Amino acid sequence: MLLNIDKTKSESVFNQLVSQISSLIDSGDLQEGFQLPSSRQLAVSLGVNRSTVIRAYEELWALGYLESTPGSYTKVRKRKVGNRECKHFAEKDTFWEEMLNSSYKPDFEKVNKFSKLIISDNDSVISFDRLEPDSRLIDVRLINNCYREAISNQEQNVFGYCHPRGYEPLRHSIVSHMRLHGVNSTDENILVTNGSQNSLQLIFQAFISKDDVVAAESPTYSMLIPLIKYFGCKILEIPVNDDGLDISVLKEYLKRYPIKMIYTMPTFHNPTSVTMPQDKREELLTLCEKHKVIIVEDSIEEEMKYFGKVHLPIKSIDTHGVVIYLGSFSKILAPGFRLGWIIADEECIKRLTTLKTIFDLSSNTFSQIMLHQFCKNGYYELHIRKFLRAFKKRMKTALKALKTYMPADKVTWNEPLGGFLIWIKLNVKSKDIDIEEYFRKYGVSITSGRSFFYTPPEEHYIRFSISKCNEHEIEEGIRRMAKAIENLD
Amino acid sequence: MLLNIDKTKSESVFNQLVSQISSLIDSGDLQEGFQLPSSRQLAVSLGVNRSTVIRAYEELWALGYLESTPGSYTKVRKRKVGNRECKHFAEKDTFWEEMLNSSYKPDFEKVNKFSKLIISDNDSVISFDRLEPDSRLIDVRLINNCYREAISNQEQNVFGYCHPRGYEPLRHSIVSHMRLHGVNSTDENILVTNGSQNSLQLIFQAFISKDDVVAAESPTYSMLIPLIKYFGCKILEIPVNDDGLDISVLKEYLKRYPIKMIYTMPTFHNPTSVTMPQDKREELLTLCEKHKVIIVEDSIEEEMKYFGKVHLPIKSIDTHGVVIYLGSFSKILAPGFRLGWIIADEECIKRLTTLKTIFDLSSNTFSQIMLHQFCKNGYYELHIRKFLRAFKKRMKTALKALKTYMPADKVTWNEPLGGFLIWIKLNVKSKDIDIEEYFRKYGVSITSGRSFFYTPPEEHYIRFSISKCNEHEIEEGIRRMAKAIENLD
Repeated sequence: MLLNIDKTKSESVFNQLVSQISSLIDSGDLQEGFQLPSSRQLAVSLGVNRSTVIRAYEELWALGYLESTPGSYTKVRKRKVGNRECKHFAEKDTFWEEMLNSSYKPDFEKVNKFSKLIISDNDSVISFDRLEPDSRLIDVRLINNCYREAISNQEQNVFGYCHPRGYEPLRHSIVSHMRLHGVNSTDENILVTNGSQNSLQLIFQAFISKDDVVAAESPTYSMLIPLIKYFGCKILEIPVNDDGLDISVLKEYLKRYPIKMIYTMPTFHNPTSVTMPQDKREELLTLCEKHKVIIVEDSIEEEMKYFGKVHLPIKSIDTHGVVIYLGSFSKILAPGFRLGWIIADEECIKRLTTLKTIFDLSSNTFSQIMLHQFCKNGYYELHIRKFLRAFKKRMKTALKALKTYMPADKVTWNEPLGGFLIWIKLNVKSKDIDIEEYFRKYGVSITSGRSFFYTPPEEHYIRFSISKCNEHEIEEGIRRMAKAIENLD
Repeated sequence: MLLNIDKTKSESVFNQLVSQISSLIDSGDLQEGFQLPSSRQLAVSLGVNRSTVIRAYEELWALGYLESTPGSYTKVRKRKVGNRECKHFAEKDTFWEEMLNSSYKPDFEKVNKFSKLIISDNDSVISFDRLEPDSRLIDVRLINNCYREAISNQEQNVFGYCHPRGYEPLRHSIVSHMRLHGVNSTDENILVTNGSQNSLQLIFQAFISKDDVVAAESPTYSMLIPLIKYFGCKILEIPVNDDGLDISVLKEYLKRYPIKMIYTMPTFHNPTSVTMPQDKREELLTLCEKHKVIIVEDSIEEEMKYFGKVHLPIKSIDTHGVVIYLGSFSKILAPGFRLGWIIADEECIKRLTTLKTIFDLSSNTFSQIMLHQFCKNGYYELHIRKFLRAFKKRMKTALKALKTYMPADKVTWNEPLGGFLIWIKLNVKSKDIDIEEYFRKYGVSITSGRSFFYTPPEEHYIRFSISKCNEHEIEEGIRRMAKAIENLD
């Protein structure tokens, strides 16, 4: 056995022994069954300490280089090759597909689209496709203050686990904030989640089984669709009118189907930006109470009311506790914190919290303490007012630019009361073009309306989001859109 | 109608009108069907601008105070009462229970225990019950550096969404780090998750259906048990010997059951702290390859090897890609960042990423950029060495104190090669006492071994974690434990 131990080297004798013997075995110079010299022999022949040799043999044994049956601790054994060369099962391409949960057919297309969106930022393209708030409006000094306060927080260790229901002071901040919207709750009604998508997932996991019937507006939030597909439930699509979902259609459905849950966005509906008036909210609630249908009220842009009318959440008049309200910091502050909240009946929250715990133990402690400080210091209300002022102007700019530049015969749109979205219908002949690709060529990215339908329509719609753009970008982007539409048949 | 409009007030006339009229309706002074004066009349009688009155009426209409049928826009309507008084369905206590997904029976007890743990910190009690790293060892200045670098990161907006698979530079850092453990992967093999519990959930969601058969060590990670119950799969419990799970039992099971997945912790098994030698890892892998069983290798304390033997992850020899490896920053740095990772075959990662996206879009951007900086700056390896040095000493202290103080006839334990855990068997007669409650009276909190069994044994075991304690606390805590055990029949 050729070993070359140099005691003057900085590498320890132990390490030299282990690495040299293991190399000899790896290279095949020492073959399976080869008997190493006894520790005593080797120690003498190399002039090293015997205990070092014993430790090295133990290490080699632990690494699987030596047999572990009694009496043959110094025999070389056949070792599995590492994963350097990745020889897969012949059926590699189908192994994981076959392993999938039988009911789960992943919606790669939709999901890849989301991933692409995330990494698609390109300075030359004006981005109207993302519903993500303009982070240039965030006052980073305020965030820095919150970080400093969080890192030295004495009550809750910022590095430790948080309560599964959420950091208690943050839940109190949410309670206070929601009171401004007429929602009366206590911290027992709040569950902090990793954003509204996580809230939705928990609700589906808790309450929806395969073949349950769920109603939703059509069009609806695009990432609801893969969830519905994953859970294998039946969806009823309710058309959206100028004043929100068509209640008469819902009434018809309620006669024919055992609807368990309705998902709705009554305020600045995504993608159509329509807002449901108060009396209709009450009608919807009364109907759902009567039929014992859970209402999931997704209201992630609650704050963004520009034009006078104040609509209170359905949750604010929910005397029977059938409404599960979803709020989020993602649309008005920053999705990077991955924090949202659910407000619901205490019994409902208890069950959702249990699931939250077994799914990820708790939400991010760092983000929770930082955002609590953000609320507590009054920064959140300050930030909302700043956002509101900025986007009221931006929305006016957008609506004016649409009127100025758009070819009136080819497009129609409605004027939203708030939020970041404008929903445009294209009156063009070409049905088959990839509309997103087409606009991108003109230097502007939009979302094809088809993404928001479970059953996509023939017509082309565009969801156009101003959330990431300033007035200059909005005007320039609309000019590009208008040009693109003019050149469309 | 008694209105008191004061134009000199700082509150706008519009706001005064809206709040006063709505109060009159709320209080019942203006009843349903009451006809408000026309906007012209009211403007004249109050001496205010007519357009202000019109806007106020619109606002009241939007708030649901006025009828919305044409011709009666100024008639008071019956308004639903807000949720100030919470009159629930008569069956309130069962409504949400009945609504639950039929297959989901929440394991409140287990989960509440976790919540209690989180909020149970009490200075007078020495905490041996939490597997959470001692945050006093974290160098906060290094974290501050990472925050500063993250907040000014130019490549990825810290406030925005991140790629669903995880922040790419962080995935590269994980690849480099795992190479130190013999695992060769690319960033396509990595999925960043909200910690190992989230990793486990995704794996179950993707691959496990009701009635699938899953094997796991017994005892096992306590929070695996509610997951198994939630998914309704069949569990096979494999006893743990001094060298890890009993392969002969697994072989028997493989003959009789179509095992789809095995969950194992080969290194510093939680709760027994046993480590599986290399040859057994290879045997397990060969067996699972042959029977096409997915191996989930949970190795959250991979770094904490104190006593010589270096065991390489099963993933390092996984040539066929059947091993899904779980890593985490929670056990060696801080669970508050809620970040872990999955390493698996690319096809597997693709499917898990799709689920991750539909469940919460992406992991926390802030934490990901901060931890990437932590790795990139070399802080992570520095931190690991610091932890390793500290806990090697602490574990020695613990083992020595156990020998010194424990009544030899009443307890047995094994000496771990690393990690934070010691598994103690109590040889006492009293089977029915609440062991956690009992120890707490002596000023020390431990975890009852029963939490880690799907089918709990009669005997009492204790999982004793040193992860949050320094040497002084360890010695004092063991003294208290010993006293408690001495007084136990």
